[in-house]
Amino acid sequence: MNKKKEKRPHVVVLGAGFGGLAFCRQMKNAPVDITLVDRQNHHLFQPLLYQVATAGLSSTEIAYPIRNIFKHRSDLRVVMGTVVDFDLTNRRLKLRREELRYDYLVIALGGVTSYFGNDAWAAHAPGLKNVTDALRIRHRLLMAYERAETETDPERRRSYLTAVVVGGGPTGVELAGSFAELARRVLRSEYRQASKIDPRILLLEAGPRILPTFSERLSQSAEKQLRGLGVEVRTNAPVTHIDDGSVSFSDAKIAAETVVWAAGVQASPLAQKLVVELDRAGRIPVEPDLRVPGHPEVFAIGDIVQLNDANGKRVPGVAPAAMQMGRHVAKVMREDLRNGKPTPEKAFAYLDKGSMATIGRSRAVAQVGKFELSGFPAWLTWLFIHLMFLVGFHNKLFVFLDWLYAYVTFNRGARLIIRSDVDNLPPDRRYTKPNQSPLIRHD
Amino acid sequence: MNKKKEKRPHVVVLGAGFGGLAFCRQMKNAPVDITLVDRQNHHLFQPLLYQVATAGLSSTEIAYPIRNIFKHRSDLRVVMGTVVDFDLTNRRLKLRREELRYDYLVIALGGVTSYFGNDAWAAHAPGLKNVTDALRIRHRLLMAYERAETETDPERRRSYLTAVVVGGGPTGVELAGSFAELARRVLRSEYRQASKIDPRILLLEAGPRILPTFSERLSQSAEKQLRGLGVEVRTNAPVTHIDDGSVSFSDAKIAAETVVWAAGVQASPLAQKLVVELDRAGRIPVEPDLRVPGHPEVFAIGDIVQLNDANGKRVPGVAPAAMQMGRHVAKVMREDLRNGKPTPEKAFAYLDKGSMATIGRSRAVAQVGKFELSGFPAWLTWLFIHLMFLVGFHNKLFVFLDWLYAYVTFNRGARLIIRSDVDNLPPDRRYTKPNQSPLIRHD
Repeated sequence: MNKKKEKRPHVVVLGAGFGGLAFCRQMKNAPVDITLVDRQNHHLFQPLLYQVATAGLSSTEIAYPIRNIFKHRSDLRVVMGTVVDFDLTNRRLKLRREELRYDYLVIALGGVTSYFGNDAWAAHAPGLKNVTDALRIRHRLLMAYERAETETDPERRRSYLTAVVVGGGPTGVELAGSFAELARRVLRSEYRQASKIDPRILLLEAGPRILPTFSERLSQSAEKQLRGLGVEVRTNAPVTHIDDGSVSFSDAKIAAETVVWAAGVQASPLAQKLVVELDRAGRIPVEPDLRVPGHPEVFAIGDIVQLNDANGKRVPGVAPAAMQMGRHVAKVMREDLRNGKPTPEKAFAYLDKGSMATIGRSRAVAQVGKFELSGFPAWLTWLFIHLMFLVGFHNKLFVFLDWLYAYVTFNRGARLIIRSDVDNLPPDRRYTKPNQSPLIRHD
Repeated sequence: MNKKKEKRPHVVVLGAGFGGLAFCRQMKNAPVDITLVDRQNHHLFQPLLYQVATAGLSSTEIAYPIRNIFKHRSDLRVVMGTVVDFDLTNRRLKLRREELRYDYLVIALGGVTSYFGNDAWAAHAPGLKNVTDALRIRHRLLMAYERAETETDPERRRSYLTAVVVGGGPTGVELAGSFAELARRVLRSEYRQASKIDPRILLLEAGPRILPTFSERLSQSAEKQLRGLGVEVRTNAPVTHIDDGSVSFSDAKIAAETVVWAAGVQASPLAQKLVVELDRAGRIPVEPDLRVPGHPEVFAIGDIVQLNDANGKRVPGVAPAAMQMGRHVAKVMREDLRNGKPTPEKAFAYLDKGSMATIGRSRAVAQVGKFELSGFPAWLTWLFIHLMFLVGFHNKLFVFLDWLYAYVTFNRGARLIIRSDVDNLPPDRRYTKPNQSPLIRHD
C-alpha cells in the first residue's frame, strides 16, 4: 500500500450483491479507498438460484469469488466478515473480527425471507435466498424421491412425491415450473414409484392471480404455461399453517414432503441496528438521493431500501433497481468528493427496463412497458439477458452449456445428494432462520 | 415388473463404485434381476476428488446419478440404502429401510481412510474419500486464507497460510501439487497476506521416497516437479502426532491450519460383519476366482479385497483393478448360471496397464511397465485417460472445459465457501469418522 492512499477518504460498502458490486465498479479510479464487506466470499447471482435448487445448475456456476472480481483494483480491499453493530455518530462499524472507521458508508445488505410473523414455518418451508437454502431444497426434494421408493404406506409415498411452492411471484413461478420439469421429465423415468404415481407440484398464491406485477394477460399466459407442465395453480389460497409434512390453505390441507416458501421478503435485520426509523418490512426509508436520513455520509441501496423515486413510483426489490441505485450513489459521492461537501439533493429515478419470469423449456413471460412476450420468444430473451448479467466468463460459459445440455438431453446434471451432518440436525435447525441476516457469517 | 422376472435369480450388488458399476454393465442381458445398493445416489469418480478439494472442479462434475446410468436397464433396480447386517447363511441382507434376499451377492464396498489406530487425528486431518470430505477440505483451506487477512498475530497468520499433506502416494502428491498451484497462482494474487507471506505447502512421506510404487527415477522426477511448484517434500518423516492446528513428525512440529490425511486406506468396516476371517487391513481374503471363502454365491471385488492374483502378484487397490474384478465376476457368474452350479475355479488375473500421478499444470509422471513418461507428455496422457473414464457425457464435457479454462486463465472456478451448520460443530464432529462405512448414509 502506498502512503498517498492513507489520506484518501475511506468508503465502506456492506454487501457484495448487485447493488454493492455496481457501486464498487462505478467508483473505479475515484479518489477513495474502498473496503467491501460481505459475509460470503462470493457474489451470488440470485435470479438463477432456483435452478440450483432444482438440480439444473451447480452452485459454483452462479457464485463468483468477490476477490477475483476486484483482483486488479488496488484501491479496493475485500473483507469476508460479519457486521455486528453500527456507530453512525462516530462513523464506526463493528465486524466480528475487526473494527472499521469510514468517511462514507454504503449499506447494500439486501433482504431475507419473511414469514409474516410465522417464523415457525421456516423449519418446514425454507426460503430461497442463498446457496445453502438452494442445496437444502435440492437435497430434500431428491431424498423425498428416494424415500418414496422404499415407503410401503401409500399415503406417505404420495406425500414424498408432492412438492408445494408458496407464493406466485416470479421466484415461485420459476421454482414451480422447474420442479415440474425435473419431476416429470427427469425423475419419473428413473424412479419406479414416481413413474407409477404422478408427482404433484402445487403453486399457492394468496391473491387472485399469479405474477401480480405483470399484466393480467401475462398472468393468464403464465398460469396456462404452468398447467401445461402439470403444475396445479391455486389462487386465492392464502396459507394458514405449515408443519413437518403438510401445508394448510383456504379449507384444504395437503401432505407434502417438499415445501418451499417464496412468498415474502423483508429487509436484512441489521437495518434495525441503525437507530433510524424503518418501514413495516424493516426497510430504510431513504432520502430521494438514497442518503440515510440524518446521515449525509451514509447511503443505502437495494432491497434494504424503501423509496418512491423521482417519478413518484415505488422502486421494486429487483436486481436492476439495486444496480441503478449503486451507480447513482457512486455519482452522488463523486460529486460530494469534488465539492468537499454533500451535493444538493439529486433524486434517484428508476428506469424500469421490464420484467420477466421463466416457466420452463421454451416457456416464459416478459413485459417491457406495454410490450408483452410469452412462450418461446420470451424464453429466448430471458436466457440471453441472464447470461449477459452473470458475473464472470467462467460462469457465463458453464451456465450456457448446462442449459444447452439440458435442452438437448432433457437431463439435469447436478442431482447430487451429499452426505452431511446437517441432515442429522432436528428439523428446526435445518434451515436458515428467517431473522438471520445474510451478513452473519464467518465461521 | 413382469412375471417372468420373478423366477430369475436375484443378484444384489453392494456399492456403485468402479467395481460395482463394471459388474452391472457386464451383466447386461444376463438372465438375472439385479439390485444395486449404494448409500449415495451417485457414482463418484474418486481419482478427481482432489480437484474438488482444491476448487478446480465442482462436485457435480465428478459425481453422476446412479439411477441415470442405468435408466434403460429394466433388469436393474437401484436402491439408495445403508447396509446394516449380513446373513450369509440364509442369503439375506439387512438395509436400514428394507430387507433383501439374494441368490448371488457381490460385495464392492470399497475402503475408508485409515489412521493406523490414531483415530483422534481424523478430527484435525480429514481423509479424502467422498464429496463431503472434499468440500470440507476446500472450505477449511479457503477459510484459512480469509482468516489470515484479519489475523494480527504473525505466528497464527503463518499457520493459516500453511497446508500439510500427509502421505506421498499418488493422492498425496496430486493434492500437494494442486494446493501449491491454487495457493501460489490463484490465491496469492487475491489475498494481501498471502501475497506478502509465502504460503507453505508441505508433503510428508514416512518412507524414503514419494510414489514408492513407481520407479526410483519417476519418484525423483515427481519430487523435482513438486519442488518446482514450491512444495516442501519431506521423506523419512513419519507423523507422530496431529492436533488442532499442528502436525508433528520426526523431530519437527509445524503449525498448520489445513492438514489432509492421504496416508492410509483400509477396507470398509462392514467387512467385519461378514463372519469371515479378514486380513490386517480388514480386507476379505477372497478365493482366486473372487468368491468369499465358504460361500460360492458371494463374491467380493475392489478395495475391500485382499488377493494375490493368478500371476502371484498382489492386486493393488486402484480403479482399474476394481473394474477388472467386476467384469471377471460377471463372467464367472454367467457361467455359474449356465451350468446351474458354481463353475470350477477360474482365477482372476490383473492386467496392469500402468499407473500415473499428476502434479500440476503440464506436470505428471506415468509408468507403463518399463516405459516411463514425465512432464508434459505424462500430463497429457493423464488428462486423456481420466476424461475417457469419467462417467457420462455431461461430466466429460464440463471437466474438460474446466481444465481448459484453468489452463488458459490460471484461475479456478469453484472457490465457494458455503455457509453451513457443519462449521458450528465442534472439530471432532466436523469430519467423517474413519470407521464410518461409505455405505452408512440415508439419514
